[in-house]
Amino acid sequence: MIDKGSSGGGVVSASPITMMESTAENEEVNTTMRTAETLLRLVPMALCVTALVIMLKNSQSTDFGSLSYSDLGAFRYLVHANGICAGYSLLSAIVAVMPRSFTMPHAWTFFFLDQGLTYLILAAGAVSSEVLYLAYKGDTSITWSAQCGYFGGFCHKATASVVITFVTVAFYAVLSLLSSYKLFSRYDAPVDYPAKGIEIPAFQG
Amino acid sequence: MIDKGSSGGGVVSASPITMMESTAENEEVNTTMRTAETLLRLVPMALCVTALVIMLKNSQSTDFGSLSYSDLGAFRYLVHANGICAGYSLLSAIVAVMPRSFTMPHAWTFFFLDQGLTYLILAAGAVSSEVLYLAYKGDTSITWSAQCGYFGGFCHKATASVVITFVTVAFYAVLSLLSSYKLFSRYDAPVDYPAKGIEIPAFQG
Repeated sequence: MIDKGSSGGGVVSASPITMMESTAENEEVNTTMRTAETLLRLVPMALCVTALVIMLKNSQSTDFGSLSYSDLGAFRYLVHANGICAGYSLLSAIVAVMPRSFTMPHAWTFFFLDQGLTYLILAAGAVSSEVLYLAYKGDTSITWSAQCGYFGGFCHKATASVVITFVTVAFYAVLSLLSSYKLFSRYDAPVDYPAKGIEIPAFQG
Repeated sequence: MIDKGSSGGGVVSASPITMMESTAENEEVNTTMRTAETLLRLVPMALCVTALVIMLKNSQSTDFGSLSYSDLGAFRYLVHANGICAGYSLLSAIVAVMPRSFTMPHAWTFFFLDQGLTYLILAAGAVSSEVLYLAYKGDTSITWSAQCGYFGGFCHKATASVVITFVTVAFYAVLSLLSSYKLFSRYDAPVDYPAKGIEIPAFQG
């Protein structure tokens, strides 16, 4: 990211040759950025699939009974959220890798979907952590007993899935930052910056 | 929000008189924007205080026993999150209303804190909804019984508090959008926009 002021100053004496050089350089930066963004979208895809598979296969039968992820609403929601996340991550990685111009509707779509996915996955991680917390600790005042003593294997796998989900949240928080940068850097800064009124007429020579 | 291109075109023939006029106009837009942002920060403050007070006063004693918000970890977290939210909303409203120039560190601080608060409040709302869901429905496979049949008043008040918390989340999502706009509109757009390379030399005419 380059500050507007310094970038403007840097190209004051731009000749056609430096323009061509800068276009080639831009092309390179461009490819690097696209690759970085694609990777940043493929990693959460892998994480979501992992969290999804761990949770899907999570069931345990003991002498006390049997417990499966589908018995708990929070874990069902976690599986759905991770499925949506994996699908969206793959699709958005494909769109991000394609070398074509990035229009405003694209930027707005990425912005809204990235933010929405972040909230969706964060909520899934949060509700599942709460269920795990209750399963480990119980709550005597509301007569809910700790169940992880009986279903230790189930709780361990569920914890692994939830931890991976929170790592995904971190990746999505960064992706949200990136997509807001890509969207809002194309807009003018709001008027409450004194520098703005001086800079624009200077550009017009 | 004005698109860079159209704004650049609009001031090509800027004379000193139109500049003065535009400064006065900017000042007006500026004040309106500041007032709008301050209101947008004061509303969630009121909401957070309401959700906090409802939850803090929430306890019920019946023949089956007594239940208070502090018996449940999720509701304790909700109270803390709403307290932090109320404090931050007030402080940020005070900072937003002050008529002074908005520097980059300010913009970054607002951006990170607004995003962080959104995640914090969303997580609080999510874990509390999960507890309410279990309290209303119970989960026989994990031996947790529905308790809202015994503690109806408690559950109703908790639901009200959680709903208000989700309204706060919506306000904070908008505030996050606003603070990312205020931050990233001050940066140059990334290089993968073909228009960029042509536009800058044109400005240097």
